[in-house]
Amino acid sequence: MQIWRSLASVNRLGHRPYSSKASVSRCAQILQASKTGPCQFEDQEVKINGFIRSVRKQKRFAFAEISDGSTVEPLQAILKPAQAADLSTGAAVEISGLWKACPPGKEQTHELQTTDVTVVGASDPETFPIQKKYQSPEFLRQIPHLRIRTPFNSLLSRFRSECMFQLGNVFHSHPNGAFTQVQPPLITSSDCEGAGETFTLAPRGAATPTAENEHFFRAPKYLTVSSQLHLEAYAAELGNVWTLTPVFRAEKSDTPRHLSEFYMLEAEVNFMSDLASLTGLVEHMLRDLTRRLYNTPVGQEILSAKRSGETGQEASAEAGSLRQRWTDLMDGPEWARITYTHAVEQLQRAVSENGASFEHPPTWEGGLQLEHEKYIVEVLHQGRPVFVTDYPKSVKPFYMAPSEVTESSNTSRETVACFDLLLPEVSEVAGGSLREHRLPDLIQNMREHGLIKSRQLPESDKPAPEEPLYPYLSPDEDLSHLQWYADLRRWGSAPHGGFGLGFDRFLGYLSGVSSVRDIVSFPRYFGRADC
Amino acid sequence: MQIWRSLASVNRLGHRPYSSKASVSRCAQILQASKTGPCQFEDQEVKINGFIRSVRKQKRFAFAEISDGSTVEPLQAILKPAQAADLSTGAAVEISGLWKACPPGKEQTHELQTTDVTVVGASDPETFPIQKKYQSPEFLRQIPHLRIRTPFNSLLSRFRSECMFQLGNVFHSHPNGAFTQVQPPLITSSDCEGAGETFTLAPRGAATPTAENEHFFRAPKYLTVSSQLHLEAYAAELGNVWTLTPVFRAEKSDTPRHLSEFYMLEAEVNFMSDLASLTGLVEHMLRDLTRRLYNTPVGQEILSAKRSGETGQEASAEAGSLRQRWTDLMDGPEWARITYTHAVEQLQRAVSENGASFEHPPTWEGGLQLEHEKYIVEVLHQGRPVFVTDYPKSVKPFYMAPSEVTESSNTSRETVACFDLLLPEVSEVAGGSLREHRLPDLIQNMREHGLIKSRQLPESDKPAPEEPLYPYLSPDEDLSHLQWYADLRRWGSAPHGGFGLGFDRFLGYLSGVSSVRDIVSFPRYFGRADC
Repeated sequence: MQIWRSLASVNRLGHRPYSSKASVSRCAQILQASKTGPCQFEDQEVKINGFIRSVRKQKRFAFAEISDGSTVEPLQAILKPAQAADLSTGAAVEISGLWKACPPGKEQTHELQTTDVTVVGASDPETFPIQKKYQSPEFLRQIPHLRIRTPFNSLLSRFRSECMFQLGNVFHSHPNGAFTQVQPPLITSSDCEGAGETFTLAPRGAATPTAENEHFFRAPKYLTVSSQLHLEAYAAELGNVWTLTPVFRAEKSDTPRHLSEFYMLEAEVNFMSDLASLTGLVEHMLRDLTRRLYNTPVGQEILSAKRSGETGQEASAEAGSLRQRWTDLMDGPEWARITYTHAVEQLQRAVSENGASFEHPPTWEGGLQLEHEKYIVEVLHQGRPVFVTDYPKSVKPFYMAPSEVTESSNTSRETVACFDLLLPEVSEVAGGSLREHRLPDLIQNMREHGLIKSRQLPESDKPAPEEPLYPYLSPDEDLSHLQWYADLRRWGSAPHGGFGLGFDRFLGYLSGVSSVRDIVSFPRYFGRADC
Repeated sequence: MQIWRSLASVNRLGHRPYSSKASVSRCAQILQASKTGPCQFEDQEVKINGFIRSVRKQKRFAFAEISDGSTVEPLQAILKPAQAADLSTGAAVEISGLWKACPPGKEQTHELQTTDVTVVGASDPETFPIQKKYQSPEFLRQIPHLRIRTPFNSLLSRFRSECMFQLGNVFHSHPNGAFTQVQPPLITSSDCEGAGETFTLAPRGAATPTAENEHFFRAPKYLTVSSQLHLEAYAAELGNVWTLTPVFRAEKSDTPRHLSEFYMLEAEVNFMSDLASLTGLVEHMLRDLTRRLYNTPVGQEILSAKRSGETGQEASAEAGSLRQRWTDLMDGPEWARITYTHAVEQLQRAVSENGASFEHPPTWEGGLQLEHEKYIVEVLHQGRPVFVTDYPKSVKPFYMAPSEVTESSNTSRETVACFDLLLPEVSEVAGGSLREHRLPDLIQNMREHGLIKSRQLPESDKPAPEEPLYPYLSPDEDLSHLQWYADLRRWGSAPHGGFGLGFDRFLGYLSGVSSVRDIVSFPRYFGRADC
């Protein structure tokens, strides 16, 4: 079925109607076919809609590099000087001609012998900010709407797309049964992490509410920081669920690892009662995803693309170490699992025995700083992925289940069944835990975290008889906006667990781009939300 | 590779460790295999993690219906009275036994002869709000976190998941080349529709900014109402792009067709210069999606599922008309295209000649009301999809390109190259247009829509020499936060177009659910954002 009809009649836009002789091909299709044996396009008329990446005008011929966003590699066209007269960098053209093999020794295998070229959108090369020369990441970040048009950033967009597609395949064909992809709400009542760094929302121009019922939703609402709580509701019915959804943090941190809006891949599994199953799920998922990407053209493009530095990617990416990174992910030995307590001991030993020095001396109570994480993954584990498990209960959110084993007889050293996955360069890329699925224990945790409100009791100091007490609560306690979450534990609550992965960070790791500000097309962070 | 390890040792949660004899199967897998010829599970030990949907206790035997969220159909287990003693509706169980064929004449082909059952999460049937009896949509909307657990709502979650997966396939394997899936920002500067019904955002607890630079992002920001403008930036490089992303409207409308947060499927195509190509793209995409869904188990479940009314679905969905709806989408004749002007004439004729009556008499200037749309699709086009094209310029946004042809010599009747796709029951489900890709014309449109601000001129009434004038602007005009969008027309702008489809509305159409409040698991609308 021909779905994009050519215009047979006069074109309203004043330029010539599309040729009906040849349908439009994509550069990727033509160039790929030209590399792999007999090429079905050879000596045929082909037609491209694309952009002039560069043009060289000589006396007898002109040469233009054409791209159409389908591959980083340009397609070379040879033109008569008259045909090239109006061509300039950036111009949008419809170009057609014969696809001819080049004599051996030329850089390209084929070139387009142009029969016809029409400029549909001119470009003034004097003012066009995207030039072929090196442009710094800082400069390009100021023009994200045009940054997309540099070859490597264009490739990054296609790579992200392929990641999303392959992620769908990973979960759809999971050996333990398909995971259900869900779309949890972004407007929520609670701050999952308890960190308080959320955005509130209100209708534009609305007066600041002075009473609860003046809020648009009859109560204050926030942009989600994690979909975990809702995923637990889905998993309680569907078993295995996942989502890839934007999350928001109103953090003022100015680092290449943080954004105010970013995509989080989250999954939740019901009937899961040990942490090894959870880290196994994460490892399997990331290995499977990487392997699938490796077998796609765009995956290979990322591994071999020329990098001119315009996305601040690590220099190391040039040197074949990116390929090693992928190989480690796909085919390397099982990733290490070490407990937090063990990690801290190793860090302390590194200080006392190997002269390692940290800004923050490692202590069990102090948690892991970025410098500690980097040392763990890069020095102690030779740059291979590592799961750090069982962190102190005191530094983690209320919903985490206790560890299966305790390493210390010191009861003040309570730990929870959780993990952080550390990768070189990006450090923490994923975190997850088993969830406290027992109602009394969950409520006790909430109480300890100050999440249970006290409420006005009626005159008699007793609840009205028609309002039965919530289990495990005293009459003056109120679960407030988290009652629905506690509800999930009341009727058929099974052990379960899940994780969240910073999707943009992981894309940066796979593509060798060190700042999430260069991985996300339109990055939002403190003080910046251009376009 | 075994990825979810069984616990071999004592389980920290106090219940017995998972059996290592049989790995866990999903109900869908077992029941599907039992219907199609020889069943590999027959006479084998199987193990299910699921929930008790109902239990009947008799003197010598007990019967339990088990579900695990993988299919609407329950799996029947037969137990000894002692095994069933602790079972109640909603309880989470690990159950295993032999999968035995039933004698002919029984409702089910097989049943589970239970050898072992463990309640991992008890349920109090007295208080469990999800009962097997009929429960009204209004009641269930108050408990969205538990509503997911009703069989039809559970099915809707899996159906949405399959739609997303198949949508990925539709775009990945598009005959005109793969579309790139992008993730445009949700935090934006502009209100795409110019309607003003947006949400603003601010860090929780922040004081109301009194100066521009006190904003978190140094300027006021809004939650996106459409990703179109950003999609145009992507399409200008990548050619064909799409996204499935949440959008937000601070509308106070109280209808079954509107939410404050919903998913929009949007696509944009560069080098597209006629409206017929755009409607062709939409028709092809929806037919392809429906056909792919039809060929999946969950698509067939939606078509045959028992409906007890708990999602307010149309009664008509029962009567085979849902199947007809799908058939029309997949295999029906080409969908009608009529111009807006023609549609208004037909409505006016319906009034004058056929005695049709409308609350708002149809006029060319007045636009189409819901009652008009319903008449067009249900009466004039016998309930088949119809594209209404070329609406008056005066009722449409600034970015639309002029129509290719004008039907009227009346120059005050300017129209634009756009469409609305109308379906029965849901009415408008998609809308799109060609975009004005010529910079001077776009700027003129922006001027007419009041989107160009005036700015303080320097003392001399002339711009400073180091600041060149923006093309087609006068010195006292400022494109403000839309300058980047105009920029897209400066260097290589080709004719292009795109559309947005209300994903939740379309899911409702395919599944016969009449309110988006019942299609979205956690609906947000004026006054309501539960859980």
